[in-house]
Formats: sequence, C-alpha cells, structure tokens
Amino acid sequence: MARTISGLSVRDIRTPTSRTLAGSDAMHTNPDYSATYVVLTTDARDTLEGHGMTFTLGRGNEVCVAAVRALQHVIVGSTLESIVGDMSAFWDRLVHESQLRWIGPEKGAIHLATAAIVNAVWDLYAKAERKPVWKLAADMTPEQFVACVDFRYISDALSRDEALEILRRIQNTRASREAQMRNEGYPAYITSAGWMGYPDEKVRRLCREALAEGWTKFKIKVGRDSVANVHRAQLVREEIGPDATMMMDANQAWDVGEAIEFMRPLARFNPLWIEEPTSPDDILGHATIRRARSELRRVSMRRIA
Amino acid sequence: MARTISGLSVRDIRTPTSRTLAGSDAMHTNPDYSATYVVLTTDARDTLEGHGMTFTLGRGNEVCVAAVRALQHVIVGSTLESIVGDMSAFWDRLVHESQLRWIGPEKGAIHLATAAIVNAVWDLYAKAERKPVWKLAADMTPEQFVACVDFRYISDALSRDEALEILRRIQNTRASREAQMRNEGYPAYITSAGWMGYPDEKVRRLCREALAEGWTKFKIKVGRDSVANVHRAQLVREEIGPDATMMMDANQAWDVGEAIEFMRPLARFNPLWIEEPTSPDDILGHATIRRARSELRRVSMRRIA
Repeated sequence: MARTISGLSVRDIRTPTSRTLAGSDAMHTNPDYSATYVVLTTDARDTLEGHGMTFTLGRGNEVCVAAVRALQHVIVGSTLESIVGDMSAFWDRLVHESQLRWIGPEKGAIHLATAAIVNAVWDLYAKAERKPVWKLAADMTPEQFVACVDFRYISDALSRDEALEILRRIQNTRASREAQMRNEGYPAYITSAGWMGYPDEKVRRLCREALAEGWTKFKIKVGRDSVANVHRAQLVREEIGPDATMMMDANQAWDVGEAIEFMRPLARFNPLWIEEPTSPDDILGHATIRRARSELRRVSMRRIA
Repeated sequence: MARTISGLSVRDIRTPTSRTLAGSDAMHTNPDYSATYVVLTTDARDTLEGHGMTFTLGRGNEVCVAAVRALQHVIVGSTLESIVGDMSAFWDRLVHESQLRWIGPEKGAIHLATAAIVNAVWDLYAKAERKPVWKLAADMTPEQFVACVDFRYISDALSRDEALEILRRIQNTRASREAQMRNEGYPAYITSAGWMGYPDEKVRRLCREALAEGWTKFKIKVGRDSVANVHRAQLVREEIGPDATMMMDANQAWDVGEAIEFMRPLARFNPLWIEEPTSPDDILGHATIRRARSELRRVSMRRIA
C-alpha cells in the first residue's frame, strides 16, 4: 500500500529516576531517564503509526525535541516506499541537511534526534509489513541488508563487500538460528541490578530476583573508587555464582592509565568486557587499554595454569 | 570588584545570506548565517555585560538556543572571580554537567552552546579588566595561560608542561611582538571573496576590492567539480598575483581518495593549506592525505628543480 508520511509529533517525556538513583553510574550520578518520543503518521487508511525514541538523562531532552522538530521537514511528505527503498540515501538526507549538518554532523543532540526519527521509520516499516522489526531485518537478503548501512566511515574495519560475504556465508543457517531464537529467546543482559547509587542489600536482592527470572548475564557499574569497585564486583559475583557472565561499565570515567590500573584488581572477577573505560573519542587510547588487558589476561592465565 | 553573574539572555538571530549565496561552500549550499547570541549580566553597579555568540547556518539555530538555556544554571549565580580563577574547572562544569553531557559530550549543538557562553565570559572578564580580550590573554603569565586549557585529550600532541615551556621561551619576545601587532595589525585572511555560489565577475571584483583594502591572504572554496575548482583557483590567482597567499577549503566534501585526487591539479596554484579535505572525524584519513600531499609537493619541487 502506498503511504506518505503526513505528520510527525514529538513528545518530551521525563521520568524522575534520580529519586531512586536508578540509572546512576560513575559519570551520571543523578540521571532522570527521559525520552524524546517521535510518532509518525501517514495518509494511509490503516492509520498505522511509526513510534521511535531516543533517550537522554533529563536536562537537555528539550534540546533533542527541538532537533527533531528541526529535522521533520526532511521526512514529512516523503513516501514510506521511497525511504525504505534506499535507507542509506534517507540517512544521508537526514544527516547532511545542508544547514542542519552544521550543528552535527552525526553527533550530539542532532544525532540523538536522528535516531528517534530513524527508529520511528523502522517501526512503521515493520508494521506495514506486518512483522516485528527483528523479523523484517532477518528476512532481508544480504543485498537488502547492506543497502541500509552507511559504510563510509567504517570501511577500514568492514567494507560493504566483506559484510555481504559474511551475510551470504551465514544465510543458510538463518532458519536454524531463527528457530533457536524463537525457542530460547534472544540473548540479553541485565544492567538494572547494578546501578552505581544502589546500596549493597538492594543490589543483592535485585541479583537474586534477576536470577530467579532466568537472567544469566549481569552488567555492573564501576568508577573511580577502586575499593568500591572490588566490593561491588565481589558482592555481585557472590550472588550470581561463578558461571553467570559479568560485564563492567565505567561510563567514560577514567583516563587511559586509570583504566588499566582500575581494571587490574577487577580481572579476578572474570569480566566479559569493560565498557567505555575512557573518553569515547579517544580511539588510540582504547587500543592501548586493549593491549594492556590482553597482557593482563595472559598473566592471569599463566598464573591459573 | 566582586560581581556575580545574575542573568543570561539568549537571542536567535538570523540573517538570510542564502539570498546572495554569501557563505556557500561545497557542503553548505544555501546557508543562512545565524547566531545564538548570549548576554551575561551581573549584579555589579557598572552594568557591564558579557557578550558571546556561536554561529550556525540557519535551521537548527533554535536548537543551540535551547542548549544555551539548558546550560544557564551552570553559570548564573557564580561569581566572575570564581570562574576566571579556574577557567579549566569552569569548562569542566559546563561540559560535564551530569545530565547534559549525555547530549554531548563536547560535541554538536551542546558544544556550540558552550562556546557562546564561554565567549561571553571572556568578553565580560576583559571588560572588567578594562582590556580587549587579546591583551588580557597576552598579559597572562605562562602559568595563568595554561590553567585555562583542558589538556586531557590533546596531551599526546601537546602536554601542559610542553605548552608551559614554549610560553616561557617566547615570553621575553612578548613586548616586541605586541608592538609589531599594534603597528601592523594581526594577520588575517579573507574568505568572503571566494564563496562557492558567486559568479566569476563577482569573485574578481571582490578580490580587487580586498587587495585595495590591504588584504594579502585569500581563502577559496573548492568542491566536487574538478574543472570548476581549477577555474576558480586560476581566476583568483590571476587577480591576487603570485605573491599573495591562497588557502583552499573543501568543507568536508571529499573522501580520502578524492581529497588526494582533487588536490593534484590544484597544487600548481600553490595553496598554503587545504582545509577540511574530508570528514572531520576521520583522523587517520587526514594523516593519509597529508602523506600524499607531501609526496605531491616533493614531486612538484623536483619538477621545478
């Protein structure tokens, strides 16, 4: 069915999570998890809507709302067909709008706003196809899938052709992987047991509740207090046992040297990863941290052996 | 005199420069140069105000205005003394506000908003000291100067200690350099003769007018049409003669390979630099372009020799 995006509304939704410190981490000590919530409407008689959101920590949510409004002329008036027929070109129109790109490009508030709009498009697309988004994506051919991706800035790491080759290689296992997902659910981890601002007893209780609900992977927040980091990791490991997976997240709190130092006493809790150990913009710093971690892992392994 | 920042107002100022294509370049084809204009007021009886601005290309200026409003609680209520006494800490409070940093950090609309506020602080500081900003900065000791700078993400290129050493080394030439600047003015180049959308005759006329006004350095816009690039460079070089300096600016229009290719036929016009040859986020790409340029320069030099 042909449909034209005829309207975009955006809501500024706030939740006062800072009251309980839900969502708190080493850098974001009192977040009010909030949403810039976009709804796309169309001229089609089925009244389907596309819903998308981006989240912020409260203050500044109105800035993202303003950025969505600034972008709405790029999408309102387009047909869904023209958008989903070339997702990469649509992304390009959004992020390279010739006046708005100045306040991006592809970063910060304007990038968050772009995410809310693109999410709403995928939601509308999937509803129009009568599928959940995961199924829509899973049913795409390798060619359709890579056509949705902008490879410009990642092509050193993964080119379009390499992505195509990988997708073609795994295509014949798609049916079995889909069956596995339908039977077992898709892998997920829980963060909400380990927020920075929670007292010990609450973390213990939330870990036990999550285990009872079937969770097997837990992410904890770590920060600039090494004793507190070890204490929290120990406490969570005690609750979840040696077989459950533990991840750690420093939310950019450390510099490169600190990341290496603060992770040293945490290695014995066998974290699967450390997330955002330093500034997200320090690419070479991340490489340095990775090298140090590999070294640390080799030393630990040797000790175990 | 003790003074507390008691108010911040912000104006959304638009100028319709797209009507004449003033400001146009390869990426920003119809900009309406606009300003997010901040005025700080204080409780002091001298009624001094701090004025600062950041500029945008029109659409999205209201997003920067919203971002300034979101940041105003960080500055209103502080004394000027406490801010200028530790500029680096003030920067930190602005860019690491624990909820707002989510929509940055230090990038995009929130970064532009930060710039307008910080500029307004410097303006107020200089007025309070009864000096222009350049003189305020020039009169700082090396220690005061480096205290204003956040070295966290640049310390691989320039550490605090290295900056201090450079400043101490040139300190004894400060008086003579100041005298030189007062006599000769400070070096500047002109961009407004060479906007992308201007017809040839207008570029020629603006070059002649700028020469008559004493300009010796000219920046031109280049883009994705190699014939047009060469045509424009040739035309400007004809007007300004062989001794004037020419710079070029691609405003991010090229990928890495294109940057190298498009610059090849432009090398004979002897540009001092090529500005933003590719995505500002592609650091390694810039290094590749620089290596290719050095190679090109060596080849040209050999030919000349």
